[in-house]
Amino acid sequence: MPDDLAPRIPLDRLGALLGPRGLLTDPGDIAPYLSDWRALYTGASPAVARPASTDELAALVRLCAETRTPVVPMGGNTSMVGGATPDESGRQVIVSLARMNRLRDLDPLDMTMTCEAGVVVKAAQEAAAEAGCLFPLSFGGEGTATIGGVLSTNAGGNTTVRYGNARELMLGLEVVLPDGQVWHGLRRLRKDNTGYALRHLFVGAEGTLGFITAAVLRLFARARETEVALCAVADEEAALAVFRRFRDRDETAVRAFEYMSGTGVALYAKCIENGVVPIPGHAHYVLVDLASSRPDAGLRGLLEAVLEEAMEAGEVLDAALGESDAQRAALWRIREEHPEAQKREGASVKNDVSVPVSKTPELIRRASAACARLIPGVRPVPFGHMGDGNIHMNLQQPEGMEGAAFLARSHDIMETVNEVVRELGGSFSAEHGIGRLKTDMMESWRGGAELDVMQRIKAALDPQGLMNPGKVLP
Amino acid sequence: MPDDLAPRIPLDRLGALLGPRGLLTDPGDIAPYLSDWRALYTGASPAVARPASTDELAALVRLCAETRTPVVPMGGNTSMVGGATPDESGRQVIVSLARMNRLRDLDPLDMTMTCEAGVVVKAAQEAAAEAGCLFPLSFGGEGTATIGGVLSTNAGGNTTVRYGNARELMLGLEVVLPDGQVWHGLRRLRKDNTGYALRHLFVGAEGTLGFITAAVLRLFARARETEVALCAVADEEAALAVFRRFRDRDETAVRAFEYMSGTGVALYAKCIENGVVPIPGHAHYVLVDLASSRPDAGLRGLLEAVLEEAMEAGEVLDAALGESDAQRAALWRIREEHPEAQKREGASVKNDVSVPVSKTPELIRRASAACARLIPGVRPVPFGHMGDGNIHMNLQQPEGMEGAAFLARSHDIMETVNEVVRELGGSFSAEHGIGRLKTDMMESWRGGAELDVMQRIKAALDPQGLMNPGKVLP
Repeated sequence: MPDDLAPRIPLDRLGALLGPRGLLTDPGDIAPYLSDWRALYTGASPAVARPASTDELAALVRLCAETRTPVVPMGGNTSMVGGATPDESGRQVIVSLARMNRLRDLDPLDMTMTCEAGVVVKAAQEAAAEAGCLFPLSFGGEGTATIGGVLSTNAGGNTTVRYGNARELMLGLEVVLPDGQVWHGLRRLRKDNTGYALRHLFVGAEGTLGFITAAVLRLFARARETEVALCAVADEEAALAVFRRFRDRDETAVRAFEYMSGTGVALYAKCIENGVVPIPGHAHYVLVDLASSRPDAGLRGLLEAVLEEAMEAGEVLDAALGESDAQRAALWRIREEHPEAQKREGASVKNDVSVPVSKTPELIRRASAACARLIPGVRPVPFGHMGDGNIHMNLQQPEGMEGAAFLARSHDIMETVNEVVRELGGSFSAEHGIGRLKTDMMESWRGGAELDVMQRIKAALDPQGLMNPGKVLP
Repeated sequence: MPDDLAPRIPLDRLGALLGPRGLLTDPGDIAPYLSDWRALYTGASPAVARPASTDELAALVRLCAETRTPVVPMGGNTSMVGGATPDESGRQVIVSLARMNRLRDLDPLDMTMTCEAGVVVKAAQEAAAEAGCLFPLSFGGEGTATIGGVLSTNAGGNTTVRYGNARELMLGLEVVLPDGQVWHGLRRLRKDNTGYALRHLFVGAEGTLGFITAAVLRLFARARETEVALCAVADEEAALAVFRRFRDRDETAVRAFEYMSGTGVALYAKCIENGVVPIPGHAHYVLVDLASSRPDAGLRGLLEAVLEEAMEAGEVLDAALGESDAQRAALWRIREEHPEAQKREGASVKNDVSVPVSKTPELIRRASAACARLIPGVRPVPFGHMGDGNIHMNLQQPEGMEGAAFLARSHDIMETVNEVVRELGGSFSAEHGIGRLKTDMMESWRGGAELDVMQRIKAALDPQGLMNPGKVLP
């Protein structure tokens, strides 16, 4: 750390502002905040600020702007791309919004709720459920991730095919800007055409343009009927054909449509306790989740009719239908435990990519083949959200290969997958964002006019470059 | 026009660039482009440029940037707020995108279509229908308005309650930036978290940040069942209660839910040829439109069950159900001809406002009462999209009052309505945008941090202020 920079960090003034509960400076207290949960990065920081209110945060940000102190916003610290981890300089102050976790409002008539940034996603789901409504955002990290974090990342998850990403679930925001101004934009309106849509700029900006401190979120009707089926399908094209059959029959019924490879399903059976697969031994699977707010939707009849057609067409080879909540949860577990099963099996390289929905079969086949050419014996474990085009194109180390040797090829693997993604008109980051992990890809993928505009916006809103430096933009 | 500014407009170079079909300079040819269709404004312009391609437009914009020539983007010229009308200086060149009207792509597997900016909305609807799909954006001006215009305005319309605004129907954009760079962002992805969501910045910017030249739009399944009912309801609260009943029963079935006052319905019967109202003489009406892609959705049963409950609860007093496509269209006509009926009856003041859905009854009652206090005898004609909180809170001149005298009070009326809207947490422009009409309200409604950020973004992207000057920002 250069000596001329160190004194700038105003720990005494931060402490006076935030009080004893609001500032951690003991290295033991700070340590858990310094690395991301994937253990990709470990940074350094002199302090973790924990403001208790928007006003406190605004005062903190003004102080940091005055003293040129860079800040790293943090929610549940579940970023998949190091989005909330400070760099190694020791100059960046971590700002955790965990204490700002009030549910400010829930209105079942408007079907909206207003949450502070630190509300955990699962708590938001539960609050909605208690009011007889549904907050549909759902993904693996929901027990830890916070509303501020999922909005800053524009999280997706399993239900995007029906409800959209975090962005589509948001109507209004409260934001502390880089100069410490507070934008009070917590509007509960479905229509509001009054100038630039600033709320969409802060969603997905990963804290590089300001702090999202609260949000108005949309609620939906709870499901009164649900059906879940695990289907063995003939190949990747058949998987997509089955999706089309359901979508064509009732486009509003499909709540999730997940692809899994036979390799991934077998890893689940091998590595997870009580990992039972009712229809084992196939090369390709899909998990179909149907839901309706109608009590008389007749989803079971719809499910059986579509599966019968798909079996006659040779697309579906076998199917297991959940007959109870417990069975439906057990089928979902096969999909949800994929990351854990991969971890227990050894080293793996993750690729969070998307393509147009129609290209998902080609993505899976071509990327798997290209990686097999790159590293003979590599085990492709593609899985994920076929219904919205987002496949987690993961690769498991070859049996017998050293994990470290395999991980040393991570960059080559990502490049190989991304080459296919690019040819198919896809994206190198579907739902995890850029963070620190993918900033060096921005120039090649978004360079030219697009990156130019992003950088102009960054400079216009955060001219000192103090908001989450080193993230998103190269 | 100051003499030192006049020579800057490079008509000869524009002509060389665009060819004879691409540049109109004859005053007779230009005249139709100089006023908005509501006849609120008439501006002046030396030329109408009509580029035939994105490259031509980019070259045009570079030339205008070089010569500091302000430009006014125009689509179908159906703005309700003078958003596409030049000012009186004679310096602003109108740029019509009408010739850029190709459907570049339609993919029923991805459920997307790629339209150039000049494609008329109705043509987009028809292209989707031919492919067995639905492009759901629907509103009065759809036969003239263009895709570029509805995206630049973030148009709403009747189906927002089910499908969202124009913004929610858009996945990717192609944009010519103020410096003439082209951003090729026509991505067909449901998930793409790679930096700031620029597409959302251009949607609703009304051409002040660049030209939208093409867009990837989402398609949906066509309806296989539809039901339409006109219901007389007890009061404003009963109207909302009926909406809740439908939404709670099946949140995906409600395609539109429109409120109409007895005054407006009576004006329709009086002023429109063959304007038949099957259940006349009531003070409040709602039009319910249900649709499903399921052929066995059972919407008639749902409709009758909900209406029966609502009648027992005293909310619905009478109802007329459409028994055929012709009857359903006739019921819709009552709602769609409201603007024309108002026009034929004399002078009226339009207010395109929104509030949280739960506040729509209060908005209608309080704004009507406040306007009656302001102008005794005034006839409130509130109607519109109760299901998304957007009420067209229109006021008809008192019988016997001079139209001009009434219109002289327009500003007072708008202020009176807006005062109620503000108290209810609403917006002074729901779906029509700001244009030229409402720029002077921006400071009072969006001033402070929000307007500050908007102005910084404008300065960052359009430092010379050449893109649609005088619109949106004060």
